[in-house]
Amino acid sequence: MLHKLWSIFCIAFIQILLPLLNQKIYSMLETQNYIKENKQRFLEELIELLKIASVSADPAYKNEVLDCAEAVAKHLKNAGADQVEICTTPGNPIVFGEKIIDKKLPTVLVYGHYDVQPADPIELWKSGPFEPVVKKTEIHPEGAIFARGSADDKGQFFMHLKAFEAMMKTNILPCNVKFIIEGEEEVGSVSLAGFLEENKEKLACDVILISDTSLYNMEQPTVTTGLRGLSYVEVEVEGPNRDLHSGLYGGAVPNPINVLCQMIGSLIDDKGRITVEGFYDNVETVSDAERTEMNKLKDNPEAYKQEIGLKGLQGEEGYTTLERTSIRPTLDVNGIWGGYTGEGAKTVIPSKAFAKISMRLVPYQTPEEITGKFVNHFKKIAPDSVKLKVTPHHGGMPYVLKSDAPEFLAAKKAMEKAFGKEVLPFRSGGSIPITALFEQVLGAKSVLMGFGLSTDAIHSPNEHYGLSNFYKGIESIPYFFKYYTELKK
Amino acid sequence: MLHKLWSIFCIAFIQILLPLLNQKIYSMLETQNYIKENKQRFLEELIELLKIASVSADPAYKNEVLDCAEAVAKHLKNAGADQVEICTTPGNPIVFGEKIIDKKLPTVLVYGHYDVQPADPIELWKSGPFEPVVKKTEIHPEGAIFARGSADDKGQFFMHLKAFEAMMKTNILPCNVKFIIEGEEEVGSVSLAGFLEENKEKLACDVILISDTSLYNMEQPTVTTGLRGLSYVEVEVEGPNRDLHSGLYGGAVPNPINVLCQMIGSLIDDKGRITVEGFYDNVETVSDAERTEMNKLKDNPEAYKQEIGLKGLQGEEGYTTLERTSIRPTLDVNGIWGGYTGEGAKTVIPSKAFAKISMRLVPYQTPEEITGKFVNHFKKIAPDSVKLKVTPHHGGMPYVLKSDAPEFLAAKKAMEKAFGKEVLPFRSGGSIPITALFEQVLGAKSVLMGFGLSTDAIHSPNEHYGLSNFYKGIESIPYFFKYYTELKK
Repeated sequence: MLHKLWSIFCIAFIQILLPLLNQKIYSMLETQNYIKENKQRFLEELIELLKIASVSADPAYKNEVLDCAEAVAKHLKNAGADQVEICTTPGNPIVFGEKIIDKKLPTVLVYGHYDVQPADPIELWKSGPFEPVVKKTEIHPEGAIFARGSADDKGQFFMHLKAFEAMMKTNILPCNVKFIIEGEEEVGSVSLAGFLEENKEKLACDVILISDTSLYNMEQPTVTTGLRGLSYVEVEVEGPNRDLHSGLYGGAVPNPINVLCQMIGSLIDDKGRITVEGFYDNVETVSDAERTEMNKLKDNPEAYKQEIGLKGLQGEEGYTTLERTSIRPTLDVNGIWGGYTGEGAKTVIPSKAFAKISMRLVPYQTPEEITGKFVNHFKKIAPDSVKLKVTPHHGGMPYVLKSDAPEFLAAKKAMEKAFGKEVLPFRSGGSIPITALFEQVLGAKSVLMGFGLSTDAIHSPNEHYGLSNFYKGIESIPYFFKYYTELKK
Repeated sequence: MLHKLWSIFCIAFIQILLPLLNQKIYSMLETQNYIKENKQRFLEELIELLKIASVSADPAYKNEVLDCAEAVAKHLKNAGADQVEICTTPGNPIVFGEKIIDKKLPTVLVYGHYDVQPADPIELWKSGPFEPVVKKTEIHPEGAIFARGSADDKGQFFMHLKAFEAMMKTNILPCNVKFIIEGEEEVGSVSLAGFLEENKEKLACDVILISDTSLYNMEQPTVTTGLRGLSYVEVEVEGPNRDLHSGLYGGAVPNPINVLCQMIGSLIDDKGRITVEGFYDNVETVSDAERTEMNKLKDNPEAYKQEIGLKGLQGEEGYTTLERTSIRPTLDVNGIWGGYTGEGAKTVIPSKAFAKISMRLVPYQTPEEITGKFVNHFKKIAPDSVKLKVTPHHGGMPYVLKSDAPEFLAAKKAMEKAFGKEVLPFRSGGSIPITALFEQVLGAKSVLMGFGLSTDAIHSPNEHYGLSNFYKGIESIPYFFKYYTELKK
């Protein structure tokens, strides 16, 4: 009887369990091998994608934006996605694709954006922003790819397409996957909310996976668990109704540039605090314990200053650099212009002066609240002698993912597998306003598994993305699918 | 005996005095008739001159500047000047010409400038800045010529060329005349000082006659007896050594735009006084009597505000608009730029921010003193976290002409003849730094007999010059030559 049972067990083991185990272990190895073998081709394909100047902020690049959507759709199809579609929106199209293997299994929705920031100031680029070049750097001895969008976000969402391709070719995709790659992230994802609302069913998912953030550094990989929100306004101060000669009128009329500077100058006090009335009313009070924990990520002011050539740091009193860029809200002028800006000297009092001002928000501030408070405050401090116009641009909610959530744990484990070291949670200062939107419309949390570095110069001239970051990302993603599926079972 | 004496007197009268008197009276009439008969041609010639885009601030217009010098030289020659020469300088050439009728007679040196301000913002022009158009306006029912340089200063120096032509053709030039028409006034007359020094003999004169200012208005013609000086600097604030993402870095680094705004915002206090240390140390204290006198020129705040579409006036406490724009120094930002200024929203902390800042000076401030004080003060208020660069541009001394000087009296009388009403002295807020230079190098006073209006929109889009101002100027000039020669005899 014992012998019989043993025989049955052996047969069962050989016929059922062993092949299953075997297949699983063998397949992930195979997947990782597939990735290794196709590295060069993956890079070449990314280079082609980076050549498309898909700048969403400037209507002059409309055609390039559409070309880029087409290219993304082609890649999705080739990788093995079904239902690939270039979905029209009131703005730039959103590329969709999916692979449903079993409706009972969990579904991962991969989000990315194929649009990029404008390239200016163009004269500061060492090679063309849309002529990708691979060069070695101190931080990237194995090479980095220089091009607008290389890190933000083409190089990062493209890792998901290639990881998906690898999983499909080696037949190990463990759950369902959907993709939405949009074309308006750099201008506030204006069409995305409507698209999500109209396609709730189609986009139904358990988690959203996004690579559009950075690691703390190569030695200390991190998963981003917090993002700041955004409030963005454009202001216009009008003095006289036409440009005036500063000699004939100077002294008697409000100069809109002087006035604007005075107004902006008063927005931050000498302790680095923002003076907009009620600005801090709803700011999350982070516990001392959490502050201690977060400051374990070593804050090296000297290295930080050196990296960006700063003479000195500046910020809100009583907070470390890490805190100032994550758990504290900010106010920055992103652009200012008015009067004569050409060569030489022109003695003019311009009619108007302009500025673009953005505020980064933390939990539990909302863009509606802060934009409203800013508008009221700015109107209040404007002298009677000028006309003021404040135009709100897009905004975004701040976001936090708890560090005991399965979404975080799967990402942490996946990256630990790829990097071979401990991965920590990290609250970033940037904004991906759509994380709050996804939660609201699709009821799912976002995992911010980004592979960039703070030195990538995103939004700046000479943006680049390390080749090893690119490959580490492609390697990590199949593990995320595996661990997430296991944790959800 | 009586009879004999009577005969001698009669013969003398007929032979000597009558022809003299006759000739004089008849000639000035003839001159004024000549002007009337040639009005249309004068205008057509001016239109041709205004078509040449002689912008001195922008090297792209180098050829147009040279073309314009050639055109001026041709006009001088055709009008009857001798020794006409396009004098090379380290910068743009200076056009010279003269008519010496008798070395014992006084010499008037006519100064003007053929260069013009840049035309931008070009999109605000209703017709091309270098495509002159004559249009009627409310203030100019007889028409005004719209073009860059029409009032400042082509339309004004051209009056002298045409008045000279008229005096030559009708043979009444009563003294010697020299012309220097330069091409760098709008960029600080950088080559003029050297030219004057090197050509002291050639330019020797008793008075300098300049038309580059405005009348108080058409109802109240004035001669400008005061000008403000100028100190002009360009400032650059550098934070990080490259543009940064405002999310990732915002809060921890000095944003050069915020810093520049804060610095500029602190330069004028809430009483409208300039906070640069020692700024008012040498400012002329104008007597109460003179202030009462100057305020007789009716200061109509409502009309002033309406004319330039202002919501409200703004300036130093305790002074009228007329005083704020003449006897008080000022500080105006003439241009500011930094960060993203294109369409849409870009979340960037720029590496640098820039501004062009000018100060109008009054007697007895000097540009060296004020520029020095500004540089020191600006460095002092810059936070340690940023790098600061301050580059002084050209400067100019303030100028005053006493209202009992023969130079002023000749101009007053000449204009009273042409306008048929009382002409008052007027201190202007603008700067013609070369007036101080002329006095220093050539030892002669300048007479500022300008025919523009404050509504001419000089340095602005849609600059124009009234046709009646143009003709009144041509009519007045021969009278100035006559009265000045008589007063100096």
